[in-house]
Amino acid sequence: MEDKLSVISKKVIQFRDARDWEQFHDPKNLAEAISIESAELLEKFLWTTTDKAYDMDNQKLEDIKEEIADIMIFLIYLCDGLNIDLAQAVESKIEINEKKYPVEKVKGSSKKYKEFS
Amino acid sequence: MEDKLSVISKKVIQFRDARDWEQFHDPKNLAEAISIESAELLEKFLWTTTDKAYDMDNQKLEDIKEEIADIMIFLIYLCDGLNIDLAQAVESKIEINEKKYPVEKVKGSSKKYKEFS
Amino acid sequence: MEDKLSVISKKVIQFRDARDWEQFHDPKNLAEAISIESAELLEKFLWTTTDKAYDMDNQKLEDIKEEIADIMIFLIYLCDGLNIDLAQAVESKIEINEKKYPVEKVKGSSKKYKEFS
Amino acid sequence: MEDKLSVISKKVIQFRDARDWEQFHDPKNLAEAISIESAELLEKFLWTTTDKAYDMDNQKLEDIKEEIADIMIFLIYLCDGLNIDLAQAVESKIEINEKKYPVEKVKGSSKKYKEFS
Repeated sequence: MEDKLSVISKKVIQFRDARDWEQFHDPKNLAEAISIESAELLEKFLWTTTDKAYDMDNQKLEDIKEEIADIMIFLIYLCDGLNIDLAQAVESKIEINEKKYPVEKVKGSSKKYKEFS
Repeated sequence: MEDKLSVISKKVIQFRDARDWEQFHDPKNLAEAISIESAELLEKFLWTTTDKAYDMDNQKLEDIKEEIADIMIFLIYLCDGLNIDLAQAVESKIEINEKKYPVEKVKGSSKKYKEFS
Repeated sequence: MEDKLSVISKKVIQFRDARDWEQFHDPKNLAEAISIESAELLEKFLWTTTDKAYDMDNQKLEDIKEEIADIMIFLIYLCDGLNIDLAQAVESKIEINEKKYPVEKVKGSSKKYKEFS
Repeated sequence: MEDKLSVISKKVIQFRDARDWEQFHDPKNLAEAISIESAELLEKFLWTTTDKAYDMDNQKLEDIKEEIADIMIFLIYLCDGLNIDLAQAVESKIEINEKKYPVEKVKGSSKKYKEFS
């Protein structure tokens, strides 16, 4: 079985290289692209209330999937450009967060959640 | 061998559940969190020029890794909340993009890149 | 009586010029700065529900004012750099929106609000 | 002569009230809208280099003006909803910044600019 993260990373990089698009992908522009795609995701929830945020038809869910994929695709390009191992970066960050937000201090408290995060 | 994407997804979800934080993670707030973390990533490249965007010391690279991890962590929470398969979403999006940007039409042209993307 | 928009524009430009900071203010970097400050504003409302979004103490209100001011300051720099008359741009946009969203078609309908905006 | 900031504020608020749209304008959603419009502004500079960021034809300049106006319009709505005096907020922030970034310490240094801002 091949690793899923490696599989999709290869596919998005092949997509880019077949088009000679790496030349546009300096990290500053990629960070902009990630911000822009994130705003497009956020737009799917604009003018809703938080308690209705889960309400969506199939079309909206498909749109959200596409925006999430766009963010992920640009994250993969950025990791490729800077030689970052995405899975390893997440593992390290979770370790940092385990120390920063110890269970016994923050569990179930929204006040603490807001302060700490 | 266990799949890396599954491994990190399990870890970030365990982190959340140990703290009872799922209650704050409606999709509207998660989409906001992704936008905010993306802006923090972008901030690492603010006031630089694009041609110096690759210049960075180890500390800056570590900061960038952490911001990338934060975005990925919130993407995983959002996919979990909406039952989205992140790898599958990327594969579908790449298929859509293959049709939208055929190699023979877009290869190596920055003008076309801007128009099409 | 001097116009308030002119007064604050002059002040922020004097602030910049006294520090020789115009050199960093190309429009791409300014657009990034506006996005980053907007995310800092958004962060003040993260993990709240929409119905509690008005709840805030004096400190939070002060923080929000500062973020709003930061966005406005970078808008003024961008308008200065591109010779855009901010007040005139708003007047033109309102005229465009008057045609795009005629009162009789969109009044009081949230569905239409979401579709049209 | 009437103050320009007051004139445009009145116009955008009349536009909103004629459509009964204030009901959608809680501060959390307005902060999201400002972030989204800022990303649309940023998108106008995506895939350019910083040294070509000033290159634009009339159409692009018009698009940028519209995005700037959209941000300003939502800033006015947010200030209206929270009883914030936008011009006064900018004046206060400039005073804060004067102390934070004294001319003699920061003038003309890009390194210091990045550190301090």
